[in-house]
Amino acid sequence: MSEIAPAEPWAVRESGLPAGAAALRQAESVFALANGHVGLRGNLDEPHPGGMPGTYLNSLFEVRELSYPEAGYAFPERTETIVNAPNAKPIVTTVDGARLDLRTGTLRRHERVLDLRRGTLTREVEWTSPGGVRVWLRSVRLVSLTRPSIAAIRYTVRAAAELRFDSDLVVNEELPAPRDDPRASAVVEQPLVSVSYDPDALVHRTRHSDRRVAAAVTHLGRPGSVRAEPDRLRWTTTGRDEVTFEKIVAYRWNEDDLRDQAVADRDAAAAAGFAVLADEQCAYLADFWATADVEVDGDPELQQAVRFGLFHVLQAGAQAGPHPIAAKGLTGNGYDGHTLWDTEIYVLPVLTYTHPGCVGPALRWRHSTLDAARARAAELDLAGAAFPWRTISGPECSGYWPAGTAALHVNADIAEAVRRYHAATGDDEFMREAGDEIIAETARLWEKVVYLDDEGDAHIAGVTGPDEYSALMDDNLYTNLMAARNLRLAGRSDLADRLVKPYSEKGGVHEQAYGFTRLQEWDFAEDHDFPLMLHQPYLNLYRKQVVKQADLVLAMLTAADQFTAAEKERNFAYYEARTVRDSSLSAPIQAVLAAETGHLSRAYDYLAEAALLDLRAGGEASGDGLHIAACAGAWIALVMGFGGLRDHDGELAFTPRLPPRSTRLRFSLRRRGGCLRVTITENRVTYQAHDAEVTFRHNGQEVTAAAGETVVFDPEPVADRPAPPTPRPPAGR
Amino acid sequence: MSEIAPAEPWAVRESGLPAGAAALRQAESVFALANGHVGLRGNLDEPHPGGMPGTYLNSLFEVRELSYPEAGYAFPERTETIVNAPNAKPIVTTVDGARLDLRTGTLRRHERVLDLRRGTLTREVEWTSPGGVRVWLRSVRLVSLTRPSIAAIRYTVRAAAELRFDSDLVVNEELPAPRDDPRASAVVEQPLVSVSYDPDALVHRTRHSDRRVAAAVTHLGRPGSVRAEPDRLRWTTTGRDEVTFEKIVAYRWNEDDLRDQAVADRDAAAAAGFAVLADEQCAYLADFWATADVEVDGDPELQQAVRFGLFHVLQAGAQAGPHPIAAKGLTGNGYDGHTLWDTEIYVLPVLTYTHPGCVGPALRWRHSTLDAARARAAELDLAGAAFPWRTISGPECSGYWPAGTAALHVNADIAEAVRRYHAATGDDEFMREAGDEIIAETARLWEKVVYLDDEGDAHIAGVTGPDEYSALMDDNLYTNLMAARNLRLAGRSDLADRLVKPYSEKGGVHEQAYGFTRLQEWDFAEDHDFPLMLHQPYLNLYRKQVVKQADLVLAMLTAADQFTAAEKERNFAYYEARTVRDSSLSAPIQAVLAAETGHLSRAYDYLAEAALLDLRAGGEASGDGLHIAACAGAWIALVMGFGGLRDHDGELAFTPRLPPRSTRLRFSLRRRGGCLRVTITENRVTYQAHDAEVTFRHNGQEVTAAAGETVVFDPEPVADRPAPPTPRPPAGR
Repeated sequence: MSEIAPAEPWAVRESGLPAGAAALRQAESVFALANGHVGLRGNLDEPHPGGMPGTYLNSLFEVRELSYPEAGYAFPERTETIVNAPNAKPIVTTVDGARLDLRTGTLRRHERVLDLRRGTLTREVEWTSPGGVRVWLRSVRLVSLTRPSIAAIRYTVRAAAELRFDSDLVVNEELPAPRDDPRASAVVEQPLVSVSYDPDALVHRTRHSDRRVAAAVTHLGRPGSVRAEPDRLRWTTTGRDEVTFEKIVAYRWNEDDLRDQAVADRDAAAAAGFAVLADEQCAYLADFWATADVEVDGDPELQQAVRFGLFHVLQAGAQAGPHPIAAKGLTGNGYDGHTLWDTEIYVLPVLTYTHPGCVGPALRWRHSTLDAARARAAELDLAGAAFPWRTISGPECSGYWPAGTAALHVNADIAEAVRRYHAATGDDEFMREAGDEIIAETARLWEKVVYLDDEGDAHIAGVTGPDEYSALMDDNLYTNLMAARNLRLAGRSDLADRLVKPYSEKGGVHEQAYGFTRLQEWDFAEDHDFPLMLHQPYLNLYRKQVVKQADLVLAMLTAADQFTAAEKERNFAYYEARTVRDSSLSAPIQAVLAAETGHLSRAYDYLAEAALLDLRAGGEASGDGLHIAACAGAWIALVMGFGGLRDHDGELAFTPRLPPRSTRLRFSLRRRGGCLRVTITENRVTYQAHDAEVTFRHNGQEVTAAAGETVVFDPEPVADRPAPPTPRPPAGR
Repeated sequence: MSEIAPAEPWAVRESGLPAGAAALRQAESVFALANGHVGLRGNLDEPHPGGMPGTYLNSLFEVRELSYPEAGYAFPERTETIVNAPNAKPIVTTVDGARLDLRTGTLRRHERVLDLRRGTLTREVEWTSPGGVRVWLRSVRLVSLTRPSIAAIRYTVRAAAELRFDSDLVVNEELPAPRDDPRASAVVEQPLVSVSYDPDALVHRTRHSDRRVAAAVTHLGRPGSVRAEPDRLRWTTTGRDEVTFEKIVAYRWNEDDLRDQAVADRDAAAAAGFAVLADEQCAYLADFWATADVEVDGDPELQQAVRFGLFHVLQAGAQAGPHPIAAKGLTGNGYDGHTLWDTEIYVLPVLTYTHPGCVGPALRWRHSTLDAARARAAELDLAGAAFPWRTISGPECSGYWPAGTAALHVNADIAEAVRRYHAATGDDEFMREAGDEIIAETARLWEKVVYLDDEGDAHIAGVTGPDEYSALMDDNLYTNLMAARNLRLAGRSDLADRLVKPYSEKGGVHEQAYGFTRLQEWDFAEDHDFPLMLHQPYLNLYRKQVVKQADLVLAMLTAADQFTAAEKERNFAYYEARTVRDSSLSAPIQAVLAAETGHLSRAYDYLAEAALLDLRAGGEASGDGLHIAACAGAWIALVMGFGGLRDHDGELAFTPRLPPRSTRLRFSLRRRGGCLRVTITENRVTYQAHDAEVTFRHNGQEVTAAAGETVVFDPEPVADRPAPPTPRPPAGR
């Protein structure tokens, strides 16, 4: 059995070999390496044992027909599914004629370390072969954060034996059968068809949609021979006692002349060599951590988890470039590799403040899909742009419209990401070239969707908000408030101001949607298996007051200025009792509102839930990829929750609180030319501006810190109050 | 081109040959013969030209897997699709070596007559072969209403030539590709696998679900030879100048020993011969028409249409016996051959009053599926029984749950059909054996679904009513009122009385569901293609005030006592303006309420729309089967609309009005041991009781007519009032 050691601040270390396919799959996700462009799941070097092979190239996908038992007008007819790219990981080692296979012989030591500052996955193995040969193996793997097309492996084996190495680039590996879970991916069998092959590179195309991909590989450090087949390049070398070699692979796809480009990329990387690639990686990460790091002194488990999350957010976004950032990044094929609203509402806010250089490209990708969004709006008899609920290249790929197409809020979410990015960076060129058009086209959609009643109040009917246990509701408050923000950005305050905010006078709380608080309560006293969606029909979920994930509570973060403090307290308590957190998107937001309403230990619990989701949770949840939004969620819970960051109206505001168990919380935010470092201890709150003057609010008070200046405040005393009514999550959750 | 002559009171006559596949398909539906057990589409005798081959045996179906792009818990995993049974219709005639094929040579005359009193389809052809031979052909076809397993053809050809006849029983004919319409059927390719074959019979099984079917055939009147193959029995005879023969076929399926049973049935029918079968048919129909007939003097087109509708209702139900009555009867494979709520709310009321002997078996069929309905309720975490939205043998087969599973009203509809049947017939044995349990189990469902709010008002949330342009609404009024009726039948008046009736104080009308009247109006001023569902996403339909079909208006019929006259007027006017009648279920009900609220010419228009739907409408709508509920709808519109029949609380009540254009309307109702004949003329309303005393209300006044007694009233003067607000259908409809 494997174990992940908790305490290391800058590494994730696994000792032992995961037992069973599910544990292997989860570890492969945790130890995935990616740069937003190329992603390698953390499969072992040798092909077996393994959970699920995974090599992903951002937006290398196959198109599949969708068929419905009972189709309806404008149901999407095709979907996109990420496919497994040529896999350059496999290296088979033979020791005195016996294959190194950890399922045989004796495994004396197995350790993997994901180094968050080096950006490498290091593996060390001590194994005794069935024939009694003691073998020591060390591999170091990286996916270059600076060279988008490049991955590299350094591989060393020591053994007093004849050694043989078969190092493969292999195509169309068999995938395990998909799980019976709507969140899993479809399996595309044998997705790639050979176009050409030579000792340097394989060129393939996707079987149905004819997308091209080239993979060029080379090996450094030893003589060897290459055998080229349509679906396999095999480099073989032999030696004894100690053998070290480096393997460099370069991918190019969806472009012209891609074989030669891949070979050129490979050659440039090979000329540098593994050591140089590793140094570049370190330097890139040093720059990243200089502002992205969040320090949580006194809480080593959380410290590790938040850095792990940030590292994977970076890996999902760093070089995503002209392609989207998927919900699973490039760590697995869950959700078919689609991007959803998570990116704009969870991932991009974190990157906007920590690593804004990759946010502009991510939003430019959205802009590049405007034609598809306009066509979709026209198909739906709407106006402007209707961005897809889930997609890889732009078209709507959601196969269950009540929780897909009907979630129109995705359009306002995208507009909000544009606003935030521009406010944070001042990137006017981006606005001129992309951002303004996104805001205008999404606002046009709302103008068509919103209607005025006889009193002149504006409504949005029949849409689905973030909570997927409700659907097709009227005046979903999150949607209304986000649509209003979108309309205001486009200069339609007149209409925005009229959008209603459903409120229950009786309950003294806002309604998630019109009529929500009059619905039947969910009976939490009954025994329920979670997540409910795998054990209850939508029929029951939709018609009762049970909330999958923060919806109105999310609105209190994204439209925080639309609620009084007292409303937030009452609303939070009300929805807290009805929210089952069956989505990983929920806990980070509940953490933020728990912190804001003064329930700090509850906030901490949700922070931990989000931060540790992929790192600690066993089982299937992370097996087909990490929850990149939850990875971002740890930062959101800490910085927006305990730091109290709000960024409405282009202004940074903080209400800092020290998390329970911590002695110091420190984080930084990039802000136009400058950077603001915030340090919270029991005794003081310190703001340090770097590189430029930064203006912000501290507990409502406007502060301007000059470049290099440090401003210090006494913290406001905050008790973690269990004041009545204490918000409580439902029984069983 | 073909033409259906309008004016014949007891026949539907087509002159000419339908041009093109769509017209052929519609005619095949119109000229279908069936007895509820066996159904033959009106294909020509020779295989070509043809629209869609169709021979159906009630509940001979294949099971298909359903796959969803994004599945959810309790989405049905399998569906049932009616398959084409062995086809005994094809007879190929060869004239001096040239096949009789109307696509060649010269067609001088082609006439088909569906005789509504004889129950036969007669065809006469005069054709000159390419070789110049003049041919006269006459075929008479029947599906026996008295012998459930039997169909027969009498075939005569005259021509001064050598004649050869190849008369087939053929299996697995190729079907045309399905239309791109959710109402069409899936095509099951090659559904039957041979089990055995001999010169008397073919035995097959359905490929996946292993249902057995035997077809035995024989030919009378001439010597011939038989050639037996696994998928074909071919009987061949030759002659010249004039040849006549009879073809008898018998089907048995889904039972033991079916080959021998089929042969025995065939032999018994053959021993009788065609003439006797035809006499039995006439006698059965004479008995049927004696009480079922509706006379509409002065309006020959409507007269024909209402009889045509009644005839097809009879053909759908007569010998349905232990099997369901499908939405298309046995006239086509539309809706995959499924039965829906149409049967209980549209078809069974008509049969209850005209031909009650086939209603008990239809409801016993529902009872036979109780275990499946209980299992479905348990799967949905509900209680009691949840009958399927659509099925052949009992399991839920709906592949789009918001308009299927969520339409829980089907359960109350079934309970209501039980109540009506018992009230009309006094069949206590049925209640003890089946009816009481249906009512109890459906009431248990409602007890679980209904919830009480803090004020003690009862609600049903998140269900779909009859209107399929709304879904997942709260307190759908039709559902609430029907659930209340169901609960009262089960002795739960306490709960029934609490169910709310959504009402808009502002609009002064009831709401189809909670919040309905606050939704955006549909913009009928825009150009729209109908039916809207083929041109607009549900996203738009659901969130606006556009009504596919009578929903609240239907509630005003099925729960008529829950509305005042003034409420009915206002409600009718309100929903009239928003109902697009994109379902054939709508017009009959709108006709009833138009008549009740005094809009007689509007009522007449809708009556005509329902009555003529299948008979006159061109195109695809009827091509895959007749709309049996609309066939019943002509009776509903006349008897419940103009006759004003209501039957709440087990009591017959009439408010008779003479339809525009008619000089006399006469209809009869079976009532326990007796029969009440109602005759409405301009000057008087006459009630005649037969066989037993009948008590009823005439315009609110209680009347008892002794057996044989005639009671006469002066009619109340009713003007067709265009009083403001005149109810108007939406623009474009």
